[in-house]
Amino acid sequence: MNVVVAQSGGPTAVINASLLGVYRAAREWGAVDTVYGSLDGIEGVIKDNLVDLNKLLSTGDAQARLRQTPAAALRSCRYKLPSVEKDSAVYEQIRATLEKHDIGAFFYIGGNDSMDTVDKLSKYFESVGSPIRVMGVPKTIDNDLCLMDHTPGYGSAAKFVATCMWEMIRDCSVYDLDSVLIVEIMGRDTGWLTASAAIPHLHGCDAPHLVYLPEVDFTADQFVQDVLEAQKKTRTVIVAVSEGVELAGLDEFQSGKVDNFGHKYLSGIGKCLEELVRDRIGCKVRSVELNILQRCAAHIASETDLTEAESLGMVAVKAAASGKSGMVSAIVNRYDKDYIPNYGIVPVCDVANKIKYVPREWINEEGNNVLPEALEYIQPLIQGEPAILTENGLACHFVIG
Amino acid sequence: MNVVVAQSGGPTAVINASLLGVYRAAREWGAVDTVYGSLDGIEGVIKDNLVDLNKLLSTGDAQARLRQTPAAALRSCRYKLPSVEKDSAVYEQIRATLEKHDIGAFFYIGGNDSMDTVDKLSKYFESVGSPIRVMGVPKTIDNDLCLMDHTPGYGSAAKFVATCMWEMIRDCSVYDLDSVLIVEIMGRDTGWLTASAAIPHLHGCDAPHLVYLPEVDFTADQFVQDVLEAQKKTRTVIVAVSEGVELAGLDEFQSGKVDNFGHKYLSGIGKCLEELVRDRIGCKVRSVELNILQRCAAHIASETDLTEAESLGMVAVKAAASGKSGMVSAIVNRYDKDYIPNYGIVPVCDVANKIKYVPREWINEEGNNVLPEALEYIQPLIQGEPAILTENGLACHFVIG
Repeated sequence: MNVVVAQSGGPTAVINASLLGVYRAAREWGAVDTVYGSLDGIEGVIKDNLVDLNKLLSTGDAQARLRQTPAAALRSCRYKLPSVEKDSAVYEQIRATLEKHDIGAFFYIGGNDSMDTVDKLSKYFESVGSPIRVMGVPKTIDNDLCLMDHTPGYGSAAKFVATCMWEMIRDCSVYDLDSVLIVEIMGRDTGWLTASAAIPHLHGCDAPHLVYLPEVDFTADQFVQDVLEAQKKTRTVIVAVSEGVELAGLDEFQSGKVDNFGHKYLSGIGKCLEELVRDRIGCKVRSVELNILQRCAAHIASETDLTEAESLGMVAVKAAASGKSGMVSAIVNRYDKDYIPNYGIVPVCDVANKIKYVPREWINEEGNNVLPEALEYIQPLIQGEPAILTENGLACHFVIG
Repeated sequence: MNVVVAQSGGPTAVINASLLGVYRAAREWGAVDTVYGSLDGIEGVIKDNLVDLNKLLSTGDAQARLRQTPAAALRSCRYKLPSVEKDSAVYEQIRATLEKHDIGAFFYIGGNDSMDTVDKLSKYFESVGSPIRVMGVPKTIDNDLCLMDHTPGYGSAAKFVATCMWEMIRDCSVYDLDSVLIVEIMGRDTGWLTASAAIPHLHGCDAPHLVYLPEVDFTADQFVQDVLEAQKKTRTVIVAVSEGVELAGLDEFQSGKVDNFGHKYLSGIGKCLEELVRDRIGCKVRSVELNILQRCAAHIASETDLTEAESLGMVAVKAAASGKSGMVSAIVNRYDKDYIPNYGIVPVCDVANKIKYVPREWINEEGNNVLPEALEYIQPLIQGEPAILTENGLACHFVIG
């Protein structure tokens, strides 16, 4: 029997560590001969475009490179599997490829939308009496999956955001003049990643002075008021704002396009607030968009995150080996005193297409900053610096063909 | 006798390593009692706002933190010293502060504009028969100072830019669709830093496929043509462009404001090219502005750069100790085979207010990419990863209360 693994959704710094975890556990699973990788997510299964990972990852060097390579080594897709009622042919095509290669289990590493695929496929195989198991492995920098303490990819993105904020605080403190720095951080629906910008608070720093998450309503007037208030205490006001924050009445700054899953493409809240400060306050102002580096800055990955990502790949394989299907591996909770993650599996149908928000009680009453509870939750997830294998000043990466 | 050191101009990841170098060498200079730091650059001398570095840097821990802290620990200024003919009072004020504190030498760590201050002050002290020596210590991520092989700050900025490009190349390769990524990189007049975005070429990578420096004329039509040509070979076209590139006929995208030194504030070439691709080509396109992180990302500093920055602080002090004034420490050239930097001092009057450009022969004939000569020049400067002291997942910084 063989198994196949694929990656889907947006890149993270540790999605390849999960791939490595799946590979290593599958190689230890006595019943498995070949571990295949499907290129371009589920599309590689539909099109029978598989690679032999036993060959590609045969050396320790290849495995070490894979672990520290950001983004998806098997590439990704944004393909949304239609319901079986609408298009049963694609399900039959997937089944045909998997049966052709004697696949006993399919592992899908991804976020919300990928878990929808895991849910539909596992139900399909059960309904047609196929023994093929389908398991999810979570990843998303957004940290918005339900039924789990946090998701792989988040800790590294949070470490990058916190580090950038920490360094930009130093940068902004060199000139003695009134200024505002606005940092726009990824997070379409939730403020998990933006909350990590406030980690410098735990290091005795007042900045960022204002932190806005999409969980709370936001108005231009209140924002200007907040900045003016902050300027009474400091000449350099630093603001962290989630890309998902919507500025009532200023929709022209935001593009409104939607992707295949119906998500709005967001951009520009940072620039929008920059203009607002320039118009209404008139001091020096700059906005910084951390942009795609948030999801691919493997050079400052969290070792805790890398280890957990790899472990979750292994947990999914072990669950499949024990006959499970339609589940997703997860850090279900934590032992709080010393931070010990508690691994398990949860039903994928309760994860797919659902969103976990930052609790309102972790945000201050005014809705313009996060509370220590949020930072104590994030702090353990950004711990540890991986020993990175480099060549001529750049990290060594693993690239297929 | 005492000495004073100040920092000026824009932040870099290693300007504090130069400060440490000045401090350490001054402490070893037998004639010196106290090493003072002037806050806010030369303005601290004018206003008599000095701190005692003997106290602040007394421990090894403080020194280790200082070395890895980005931006200027003594803060900075953008103050342009008027000519002595226009305003002799400010010169007398500076002299009064320095004499009050029994200062025998003043060290100014900075770029082009700061060297202008060193030049004017050293000539003034000579003209009035004062024994006070004035020495420059170079720093600028722009790498545009004349009479030297390269400048401290550049290697670390180049390492950050090359690393980000390397990781974004991975990020962009996960989707199988036509797309263009445009990365805007700092460099007002010169393309030194933008050239470093092409370091992945040395690692067997075709990306970035197009690299535009301000040294070469640029037109919208040629750019669109270049992208269409690149799309014949790859689905993902990656472009690096210097902020200083001017797009003829599209001035409305650029703000045109000027700072105290008459420099234009530039922004928006990346966004501008993004719009151009959207309008004229119509594929998926994204622009990323690396922004101020380029000058403060100490977490990925080059150890080579840190070591050289510290050494140049020491070289300036040793030159002052031997009676020199009106000079700037410099890596004057390199022994090429194994890259050994050759330290020396050069006359500050030949450095101030001058600009060193990327040689035209390091840019390809079409003016849309850099040649291997440029990359071989940059490569040694990004080598080495510093062992960074961290606390709870963030680097330890040195901050003056």
